[in-house]
Amino acid sequence: MSLPDPFRELARRFPADRFLTDRTELFVYECDGLPVHRQPPAAVVLCETRDEVVACVKWCAANEVPFVPRGAGTGLSGGATPVRGCLLLDLNRMRAIRKIDARSRYAVVEPGLINVRLTEAAKPHRLMYAPDPSSQTACTLGGNIAENSGGPHCLKYGVTIDHVLGLEVVLPDGEVVRLGGPIADHPDHDLVQLFVGAEGTFGVVTEITLRLTPDPPEVRTFLAIFDSMAKACRTVTEITRSGIVPVALEILDRRTIEAVEASVNRAGYPTNAAAVLLVELDGFAAGMDEEERAIVAMARANDPIELRSARDPAERVALWKGRKGAFGAMGRVDTDLYVLDGVVPRTALEETLEKVYEIADRYRVKVSNVFHAGDGNLHPNISYDGRDADVTARVLAAGEEMLRACVAAGGSISGEHGIGLEKRDFMPLLFGEGDLALMTGIRDAIDPEGIANPGKGFPDRRAKRRKARA
Amino acid sequence: MSLPDPFRELARRFPADRFLTDRTELFVYECDGLPVHRQPPAAVVLCETRDEVVACVKWCAANEVPFVPRGAGTGLSGGATPVRGCLLLDLNRMRAIRKIDARSRYAVVEPGLINVRLTEAAKPHRLMYAPDPSSQTACTLGGNIAENSGGPHCLKYGVTIDHVLGLEVVLPDGEVVRLGGPIADHPDHDLVQLFVGAEGTFGVVTEITLRLTPDPPEVRTFLAIFDSMAKACRTVTEITRSGIVPVALEILDRRTIEAVEASVNRAGYPTNAAAVLLVELDGFAAGMDEEERAIVAMARANDPIELRSARDPAERVALWKGRKGAFGAMGRVDTDLYVLDGVVPRTALEETLEKVYEIADRYRVKVSNVFHAGDGNLHPNISYDGRDADVTARVLAAGEEMLRACVAAGGSISGEHGIGLEKRDFMPLLFGEGDLALMTGIRDAIDPEGIANPGKGFPDRRAKRRKARA
Repeated sequence: MSLPDPFRELARRFPADRFLTDRTELFVYECDGLPVHRQPPAAVVLCETRDEVVACVKWCAANEVPFVPRGAGTGLSGGATPVRGCLLLDLNRMRAIRKIDARSRYAVVEPGLINVRLTEAAKPHRLMYAPDPSSQTACTLGGNIAENSGGPHCLKYGVTIDHVLGLEVVLPDGEVVRLGGPIADHPDHDLVQLFVGAEGTFGVVTEITLRLTPDPPEVRTFLAIFDSMAKACRTVTEITRSGIVPVALEILDRRTIEAVEASVNRAGYPTNAAAVLLVELDGFAAGMDEEERAIVAMARANDPIELRSARDPAERVALWKGRKGAFGAMGRVDTDLYVLDGVVPRTALEETLEKVYEIADRYRVKVSNVFHAGDGNLHPNISYDGRDADVTARVLAAGEEMLRACVAAGGSISGEHGIGLEKRDFMPLLFGEGDLALMTGIRDAIDPEGIANPGKGFPDRRAKRRKARA
Repeated sequence: MSLPDPFRELARRFPADRFLTDRTELFVYECDGLPVHRQPPAAVVLCETRDEVVACVKWCAANEVPFVPRGAGTGLSGGATPVRGCLLLDLNRMRAIRKIDARSRYAVVEPGLINVRLTEAAKPHRLMYAPDPSSQTACTLGGNIAENSGGPHCLKYGVTIDHVLGLEVVLPDGEVVRLGGPIADHPDHDLVQLFVGAEGTFGVVTEITLRLTPDPPEVRTFLAIFDSMAKACRTVTEITRSGIVPVALEILDRRTIEAVEASVNRAGYPTNAAAVLLVELDGFAAGMDEEERAIVAMARANDPIELRSARDPAERVALWKGRKGAFGAMGRVDTDLYVLDGVVPRTALEETLEKVYEIADRYRVKVSNVFHAGDGNLHPNISYDGRDADVTARVLAAGEEMLRACVAAGGSISGEHGIGLEKRDFMPLLFGEGDLALMTGIRDAIDPEGIANPGKGFPDRRAKRRKARA
């Protein structure tokens, strides 16, 4: 193994089992949940403390080595894809819960803590951490901060950015700053927000103060199964227009339903089902009967094949089964899965879906859709065999066209997965030169040397500059 | 009148009645709602279009003249206090409502629109603009953006930053950028948030896209009058701990009650009243009876002198009368009013209030407190005679000590009035050198020449640099 000299010097500061340079060990770090891009890092360091992160970042700054922070690697936009020659900072060992303040309803945690662990720890206080990415049993809170992650229940509770009260950040020069804090009215709360979703391009988050949310005393879940997507979408529009804010409004399309029914976890959907709509309400028991009646009436008016409802946790699990099993079921369809993340106005859901199917057919790729209908967040899932270069190229081209269709419908290229490596070159679809210059100007002010996860989030002009300089 | 030459050149581009340079005309622009600092601008231009703002800002950039944007001038932290030699951009004439999209629930407005006008325009669609500063019948939405304003109903609905979807901004070099938009998932939403509360130091907002909120179908208002502040504060803590989120939780202290009762708008509070707690619930009618019963039970358990409740709009107006009339009532107490804006954890409300009274007594100034108890946002109001320099000095010293007391209690120096000129030198109470350097680094990236409302929000080191350079 031939490691550049300065890396050897850094390696000496860590136990051998926490500083990885072996090719086979680096292999698992080549990509995150976006398998279409792969690049091994030069080395991986398993950080255990903030001071170790500081030491690594200072070393990177002194040696002009780019660094890439990484949590569980479940991200779907390539935010943790290594950069050639980079030091990858694995933060999974920094997973302590430093404080749960049940009275003021906040928690202080380390970035490597797995999302669902915080809700488990808060449960005895009848609190929860609201944002629930589908990967919540694996993904880390640091990664959630980096990508401003969402989840099915974010319709009511908001995405990650709405729950971050404070951050401790190691800036790209190794300086440590503390932004925000448990008090809601920190004058630098806007900076906290700026750092959420920055994908590590502004530095490494080493401590997070998160808002905790009261456990809802009452939850009701309904499934409405329709023989057309139009009926499901119309029901969603009517529910949101009524002013009722369900905690989740999810739709599975026909292709997803078929995959679920073909899997070991079949949910027992009728064979003529073309769309399954899942609605969940939570909150105080008072008033929920009326909301339930209103929702059932709206679903019924749109002529469903079947309505199911759950009132206890066991029944609820049954209704969520198809939704939760959808991504697993895709595993049967092909070896790889490219999960897209576009957003459209709710009123444009149906027509955009039609366009997505048309694009998939044209590029001869297999697409299915599981999506957060309540906030217009589409997730076209393309199943493919990544060992076939031609197929992969068609998958990428189809994906780009699907995102362009979302933008054309008045939407956006990211709902909850971030921009990362995947969509940095699509940013000009949404932003003019001036807007991008403002964004990169702020980034350059924070990371003038361009070593903090470079090439993520923005069209990478600095890489060219660095190359020109070298 | 001797106007510097470049100003004459700019003046020629505007009708005389929209370019003010006369000392008596400039007089009204000397200060905003923070009367302790006064400075006339060099000139005022009444802008009517974005292109006029662009022309002015480009002229300022070319001539190294600082500019200060201003709406209604109701701000309480001196965010619109002129800088010596500045061009003041009066934006009150840019007050169009460009669009109300009732279906997708947003509005596009110009910055000079008065806050309450938007709610009035949205009302036929059964929508409202939720943030309601006490000055909402006068203050502009552009000013609300600049200071990230709050209001009594922000306890449930959040402050300005939670309702801004998009901005059009004229940057300090005259370039126009559009940030965010009506779709919730713009990848640059963090930049929108960065510009909210920036007090014009990042440029001039010329168009605003705001979220509209459904008019609550049901509102209930209660007044609980106590013979001690402790009982009122305890009730607030118990209500919030129960998980019920009222839309407003306001407290008037004994000195405010006395001022209200001595004014023409007396509210008929009992003479032994030491704290008036106003609680308002809104939302769906369903379940509200139970929440009402719970709140009344919590208030009753704390031994109130009297409980009043309102179920129709007329009764509600009566219950709000004392709260709404409080600031007017202060007009009787003395000629000037300094409204402070500190935040403490709800659990520290009572002890901090005691400290505030103690400080006021020590500095021999008259203080009363009307505050958003639900979010721990204290507003000590110091009534004084601004013509007396000695008194003014004592007022400022007492105010500083009160804010220090809030920070010492684990709180913050601003809840909803911004930092402005008033509190820029208190920022180091909350932030270390590194944090402030990060903030000013971002500001300097956006405004490298330091002409955009300089000296607001941060300890002003650039002013020194500029001086040194000159």
